[in-house]
Amino acid sequence: MATTKTGAPLDRGTLDTLLRRRLFYTPAFELYGGVSGLYDYGPPGCSLQANIVDAWRKHFVHEEDMLEVDCTMLTPNDVLKTSGHVDKFADWMCKDPKTGEIFRADHIIEEILEARLKGDKEARGERIVEEGEDADKKKRKKKLKDIKAIKLDEKVIQEYEGVLAKISDCSGEELGKLIVDYGITSPTTGNPLEPPVSFNLMFQTSIGPSANLPGYLRPETAQGQFLTFNKLYEFNNLRMPFASASIGKSFRNEISPRSGLLRTTIVEKTIGEAVKEGIVDNETLGYFLARIHLFLKELGVDQEKVRFRQHMPNEMAHYAADCWDAELFTSYGWIECVGCADRSAYDLTVHSSRTGEQLVVRETLEPPKVWEEWDMDVDKKWLGPKFRKDAKKIEEAVARISQGAREKLASVQKDGGKVFIEVEGLGSVELEKVTIAKNKKAVNIREYTPNVIEPSFGIGRIFYSLIEHIYWSRPGDEARGVLSFPPKIAPTKILIVPLSGHSDFAPIVTALSAKIRRAGISNRVDNSSATIGKRYARNDELGTPFGVTVDFQSLKDGTITLRERDGMKQVRGTQDEVIETVSQILDGDITFDDALAKFGEFQGQELDE
Amino acid sequence: MATTKTGAPLDRGTLDTLLRRRLFYTPAFELYGGVSGLYDYGPPGCSLQANIVDAWRKHFVHEEDMLEVDCTMLTPNDVLKTSGHVDKFADWMCKDPKTGEIFRADHIIEEILEARLKGDKEARGERIVEEGEDADKKKRKKKLKDIKAIKLDEKVIQEYEGVLAKISDCSGEELGKLIVDYGITSPTTGNPLEPPVSFNLMFQTSIGPSANLPGYLRPETAQGQFLTFNKLYEFNNLRMPFASASIGKSFRNEISPRSGLLRTTIVEKTIGEAVKEGIVDNETLGYFLARIHLFLKELGVDQEKVRFRQHMPNEMAHYAADCWDAELFTSYGWIECVGCADRSAYDLTVHSSRTGEQLVVRETLEPPKVWEEWDMDVDKKWLGPKFRKDAKKIEEAVARISQGAREKLASVQKDGGKVFIEVEGLGSVELEKVTIAKNKKAVNIREYTPNVIEPSFGIGRIFYSLIEHIYWSRPGDEARGVLSFPPKIAPTKILIVPLSGHSDFAPIVTALSAKIRRAGISNRVDNSSATIGKRYARNDELGTPFGVTVDFQSLKDGTITLRERDGMKQVRGTQDEVIETVSQILDGDITFDDALAKFGEFQGQELDE
Repeated sequence: MATTKTGAPLDRGTLDTLLRRRLFYTPAFELYGGVSGLYDYGPPGCSLQANIVDAWRKHFVHEEDMLEVDCTMLTPNDVLKTSGHVDKFADWMCKDPKTGEIFRADHIIEEILEARLKGDKEARGERIVEEGEDADKKKRKKKLKDIKAIKLDEKVIQEYEGVLAKISDCSGEELGKLIVDYGITSPTTGNPLEPPVSFNLMFQTSIGPSANLPGYLRPETAQGQFLTFNKLYEFNNLRMPFASASIGKSFRNEISPRSGLLRTTIVEKTIGEAVKEGIVDNETLGYFLARIHLFLKELGVDQEKVRFRQHMPNEMAHYAADCWDAELFTSYGWIECVGCADRSAYDLTVHSSRTGEQLVVRETLEPPKVWEEWDMDVDKKWLGPKFRKDAKKIEEAVARISQGAREKLASVQKDGGKVFIEVEGLGSVELEKVTIAKNKKAVNIREYTPNVIEPSFGIGRIFYSLIEHIYWSRPGDEARGVLSFPPKIAPTKILIVPLSGHSDFAPIVTALSAKIRRAGISNRVDNSSATIGKRYARNDELGTPFGVTVDFQSLKDGTITLRERDGMKQVRGTQDEVIETVSQILDGDITFDDALAKFGEFQGQELDE
Repeated sequence: MATTKTGAPLDRGTLDTLLRRRLFYTPAFELYGGVSGLYDYGPPGCSLQANIVDAWRKHFVHEEDMLEVDCTMLTPNDVLKTSGHVDKFADWMCKDPKTGEIFRADHIIEEILEARLKGDKEARGERIVEEGEDADKKKRKKKLKDIKAIKLDEKVIQEYEGVLAKISDCSGEELGKLIVDYGITSPTTGNPLEPPVSFNLMFQTSIGPSANLPGYLRPETAQGQFLTFNKLYEFNNLRMPFASASIGKSFRNEISPRSGLLRTTIVEKTIGEAVKEGIVDNETLGYFLARIHLFLKELGVDQEKVRFRQHMPNEMAHYAADCWDAELFTSYGWIECVGCADRSAYDLTVHSSRTGEQLVVRETLEPPKVWEEWDMDVDKKWLGPKFRKDAKKIEEAVARISQGAREKLASVQKDGGKVFIEVEGLGSVELEKVTIAKNKKAVNIREYTPNVIEPSFGIGRIFYSLIEHIYWSRPGDEARGVLSFPPKIAPTKILIVPLSGHSDFAPIVTALSAKIRRAGISNRVDNSSATIGKRYARNDELGTPFGVTVDFQSLKDGTITLRERDGMKQVRGTQDEVIETVSQILDGDITFDDALAKFGEFQGQELDE
């Protein structure tokens, strides 16, 4: 069950209302009835997103000296045809012909068979444990005509479980057959469904005037990086390995992302052990899984609500040799927030063979690789005239002779013997003019197509899951939430509140706001007429970690109070002291408790909270 | 003529080679033959872009307390139909039926008539002054069969000039007629052109499974903000005015942007004067033009190569009541880099009337607006029964009676006279039961649709123009360029170069790089085997303002040298001193000259530059 930061049951409706009220995000085009799946970020959401991206850039691009690139989103058909996305990046969809409603074929079969199995368990009086589900699915389940406590035959149960285990491997035709065989109908209307049709998940468009070049909005940011491989390799002074990075949008025309209802086995291990035992395939993959974990921790996700899950072979993308997801637990269940795929040399190989451009690394071997080898050179001036069209056959047979056999033949020749070899179709042939010698060989360059490990972060999903993890409400004030973002990630760092609308406060507030901004700390002023307590409560919902009050004392001696969001304790100091304190907390040098110890808790002021 | 930062003629080819060699940008999908108009940013380009965006966010969003939003790029057809983009955001295009080449109808007519006028001037022996032109146009002009020194009739010259003056106002039909009348053919092949066809500049796609919702990639970032108006207004505690801001991509399927060949009159004025004299329509517009100017200055654009140009009525977008462009001069001529449009209440009005949702401001008037007014109330119980279906006609006639007439009627009534009014179709009617009285009126709320000033920045164009402005080469070393970005904008701030590949340098270099990064300053290490001089030269091309050398002295006493890119002078100090110096320069607190004065110029080291 999803819980708040303090362990209370999480009410998604209440949180959702908070997020819309405070304009973290809002359905896009709501005036026009909205478009399912499209959201706009309002001011706090926009800042939060920018801060997450900024933390990402520091954690990955800067710390690891990655080469950041910004590639175009419009991608010609040819590129995505080669990468496999045009053919394989698709879902099978079924239509309810009467209502026009569309369902993912595999999802609908899964849901209905799972519902029937659940009904069976209910009929047998077994306890059912449910992980989170998304709202759409819940709504459908409510209407699901199948979800009745009906006992099933053992044979049927086994059949269903067999289908569920291999559903991701099914072709469209197989899915169509399952729908007919198991009498699967629309869960909303009970109507029969049309046979599954392949629906590509990319947004199609045309590039250029007169719409002459078919293309798509990129379905992932990776392709642009693969295509720039040679240039990046050169930019990196031809050194390997290197990492490139890209921040930007990619587009998938999906019905609804799957939430993690898969049955999994949880194992706790250090990443070192996992690599050593081969659970995680290699060190590079292990390294990035660890870095991803550290990044999520830095953002403030609940460490009890993170897991890494390896993809099963049948759920892997067409380009992946292996894949691990970092999943975060929310009221929707486990959500895949970061994917870390081992794409091996797949993409570089397909683009290279399609375009004829080499996408390889040339590594100078120092020292060069040196070895000795027996060479057999048949004199072509003797071979050609004598064997004519069979000459090539003989050459090929010579090339196939092993090093051991050559050594023996050399010894025969050295002793004055004749050199005979077997040639298919010609029998035993004497090589009258052949030189057999042991020669030194050396190779300076190793040429290879590098493997690629691709961690890929869904900012929107991280954004939402993080909010669920750091949301809570104060006992006795459940209607009002608190979002406890770590200070570095919080949309705004300081709220400045003048005690009242008294005009004496205006100049000091304006000057203070500018001063804080010059120190590189974002802040907002709330000089509305609400009580200080109400203004702080409003601000707790925006997740602002610090509040600064300007009161009558401030007018006298220039001191201000600094309030910390979570503990609601305050300290008092000069403007410079307060700004320096917040600055140090943001840099991670001290905590608010250190400030409490230094300045002492300020309790002089009565606030009507 | 376009010049470098130091005033030398700018060779665009050389600069272009530099930018591609250093991976500022690179044609997208080059492996696949490239797609005209699409570019990828490499690592330095990506950093430069991020720094420009960051400067923009600080200058506008933070300094002005704007409400930043991030709206979705996919936009349903309905929204853009209402905004006028589906119908009006289009160009007229002509096709060469034999080659399939596409031309913008207005551009091609313009080019050919201008070429003929130029040919006429040549024939008359007049001197021709040319502003910059883009490469494509130059290529076409070379082939332009018309560009011959042929004298034209005075009457023809006048006709051509008339056409050129009103070309932007022409409909597709009119453009087609001009093409036929003036015998305009493809400038590349001489083939006749097909009649103009309207080509919408938006990228079309379909949203949702089964492609059920037609939509476009947004052609501008503004629409999402208009649609969120009510929520932003509320977020701003119902205070006006407010500014929202959005950073993101928008998409236009253009052939090639027009470069500024328009004939203009230049006037130099302060913005205050311009507003006062009505050249700039209002203070808000003037304020933003000034802020835009300051922003461009901060980026480092050449102050001699900036101008603000007001749109002529026939080039204005369909939503604009007025528009000023900030243009930067480059080797392509004057390029429109920032548009600042007065969209009045256009967008809010059209979306409101289409959706039926009010998009208005309700302003409480304090004190309320109070005035006196003559009211005339006809007793309905008398009016209805007496006039039946004509009652409404009489009511309407009463409503139309002016204040002055009412005052007179009141005076007649007061004196015991009868009240007669004229009603169309009924003639003179006596109002037997009417009350005429002067009443006090008050209004507390003023409701209005606010006007919108929309500055819109093309980051790509600013990016390129800025580079032309700050590019130069050292005398005697013209093949190698220097990009003199202001330190704050430069892609990377410090290059760390160990004197040689000696292994003693490695630990100090690694530690120094981490230390500089912790201070929030981006840096890169170049420990390649090239000479220090060559490494610095390479780095001048990347525009890195500072170089730090680690030499044998550093191993002894921990000091390092700091080199400034433009003047190539050095100072020497401890690591902390050097980092603090760079940090202060980046904050704008000191200049490198101040550092030279403080530490003295360091000349001890012989570098092979």
